[in-house]
Amino acid sequence: MTTNVRSYAAHSPTSPLGLFRFDRRSPRDNDVVIEVLYCGVCHSDVHNVRNDWGNANYPMVPGHEIIGRVVDVGAQVTRFKAGDRVGVGCMVDSCRHCAACGKGWEQYCESGATYTYNGEDRIDGTRTQGGYSETIVVTQDFVLKVPDGLDLAGAAPLLCAGITTYSPLRHWKVGAGSKVAVVGLGGLGHMGLKLAKAMGAEVTLFTRSPGKEADARRLGADQVVLSTDEAQMAEVAGRFDLIIDTVPYVHDVNPYMPTLAIGGTLVLVGYLGPLDPMLNSAPLVMNRKAVAGSLIGGIAETQEMLDFCGQHGITSDIEVINIQDINEAYERLLKSDVKYRFVIDMASLKDAA
Amino acid sequence: MTTNVRSYAAHSPTSPLGLFRFDRRSPRDNDVVIEVLYCGVCHSDVHNVRNDWGNANYPMVPGHEIIGRVVDVGAQVTRFKAGDRVGVGCMVDSCRHCAACGKGWEQYCESGATYTYNGEDRIDGTRTQGGYSETIVVTQDFVLKVPDGLDLAGAAPLLCAGITTYSPLRHWKVGAGSKVAVVGLGGLGHMGLKLAKAMGAEVTLFTRSPGKEADARRLGADQVVLSTDEAQMAEVAGRFDLIIDTVPYVHDVNPYMPTLAIGGTLVLVGYLGPLDPMLNSAPLVMNRKAVAGSLIGGIAETQEMLDFCGQHGITSDIEVINIQDINEAYERLLKSDVKYRFVIDMASLKDAA
Repeated sequence: MTTNVRSYAAHSPTSPLGLFRFDRRSPRDNDVVIEVLYCGVCHSDVHNVRNDWGNANYPMVPGHEIIGRVVDVGAQVTRFKAGDRVGVGCMVDSCRHCAACGKGWEQYCESGATYTYNGEDRIDGTRTQGGYSETIVVTQDFVLKVPDGLDLAGAAPLLCAGITTYSPLRHWKVGAGSKVAVVGLGGLGHMGLKLAKAMGAEVTLFTRSPGKEADARRLGADQVVLSTDEAQMAEVAGRFDLIIDTVPYVHDVNPYMPTLAIGGTLVLVGYLGPLDPMLNSAPLVMNRKAVAGSLIGGIAETQEMLDFCGQHGITSDIEVINIQDINEAYERLLKSDVKYRFVIDMASLKDAA
Repeated sequence: MTTNVRSYAAHSPTSPLGLFRFDRRSPRDNDVVIEVLYCGVCHSDVHNVRNDWGNANYPMVPGHEIIGRVVDVGAQVTRFKAGDRVGVGCMVDSCRHCAACGKGWEQYCESGATYTYNGEDRIDGTRTQGGYSETIVVTQDFVLKVPDGLDLAGAAPLLCAGITTYSPLRHWKVGAGSKVAVVGLGGLGHMGLKLAKAMGAEVTLFTRSPGKEADARRLGADQVVLSTDEAQMAEVAGRFDLIIDTVPYVHDVNPYMPTLAIGGTLVLVGYLGPLDPMLNSAPLVMNRKAVAGSLIGGIAETQEMLDFCGQHGITSDIEVINIQDINEAYERLLKSDVKYRFVIDMASLKDAA
């Protein structure tokens, strides 16, 4: 028993996304069936669709910043009922018994988490398909509760951009008195500013674009440093306990190292690949600094992040689009022409022909 | 009032070290005058003498792994008296009022610690000269007590090789149940094995030399992994909480990253310079790993390390040489032909002509 649903899918790395029908499974005993109301558009959607990471399977229905409403539940589902406002992020399952899963770090599952799309269901081996679709069916343990009061469209990007910046802020113990910098003001960066500020940190934005100061301050930055200006960079020497580097392409991290305090850490959350130009170890050794990375967050931590956002009234700044505009949105995303996240109003899928 | 002392000094990057006479200051009120009994030979002595770091001043008297006996003290010295067994490491002063000094991190002093040699005295601006000399005069706050029972010659390398590995082991909270690996079996590496083992960790040596297994096990390794053997490397995938990388020259750290556990850190303590080949960020992001650095340790931490070594009967494995053999020792050091540290018996300086 399956349900045929409408979606938008990519059929190759080069073809535009278009309407696609496929079958969603009927709910298993632990499954929640979710009507997708909003779905954020993440940079990694573009990477996946265009096979930038070399592991794409087609047809591919992207989307892992999913907000929806429960429409049906399996027989053993206890945590959700029809009508609940829920979210689904980058993962829909993991092995659940490795050391990482035991610690609530499903994103670091030793056998690999099951990604929300372009993944493989652990039970029947079918390909997972994401949130650019009418419905999604997910085991209740990977479904998040959306706090009352949060705007549903603005909450969608919390499921990826939000948790990706929240997790390192928590892991490196940011709080009142912490000095945090964020590199890059995009989908991840603007969430980093909001979350770090709400945690009580003194927040700085590093940017290469002089025009971003007013917006950065509105989003939570106490200070904006033009990273191309050596004098401004020198002024913040030794300042930051934590730098969250959200830049999604290869870039030189060396200029940021002197701005870390002794024992400080620069965390990469946007870029996977060789550090080119080469990272110099001298600032690491001479001041016990570190370069680290961080990947989204665990399920319990994602729920904690959503609750934190509920308490602080934090959502993403978004531009709502129709699903019919997705290909144009991808082009604009690649030009950083969005403030700060596209979110698809999935009601538009009903009109898709 | 000064005292003319005999020493061994370098006069240029290329000339051999030879006998040199210079004046040591008379003790200030807080100074301790130390007769140098033993002085370890550190890899950085060679770097400094040969001006590898571009900041050499000549004549230069190297030596920062100093063990001696107090022969005189200034009027306000309360912590030491003539006859005490004492040590001096890489630093003889720091600003004492910056945030780093306030935390006991004199090695990260914001205005730069005063190094034991090739540094500049903070009070009179004279060049500091190291332990390859009859005596050294050091403010009491930078003099360490050597626990009873420790062999004095074997204790000398604790002042640099010991603290350099002890500090990251403590900072990254190694204890019973920790899984620690050490890269490289030299002066630093063999201390890393001993100290990590004494802290209760499960200890592994990474080496490129098949012949080191028996020695490594004697020094504390539970396991030896040949880093050139892909099968052996694959066997320890995801294993280590902390890797202490003691290799003092440029080398590829990427092959070690998969052997870190989730959240694990590789700490560079031996190499200053660009990470060539380029460090890949993907393993950092995908498993919240980090590459960090660490520099010697603070004064209180160095005393803690000496006390720890006293409790556990830990000293360095050494080859005692006469000062007349120092130039040959440098050549052997560059070929890693020492097990595991040269220590100069400074009594030999009396015979130097």
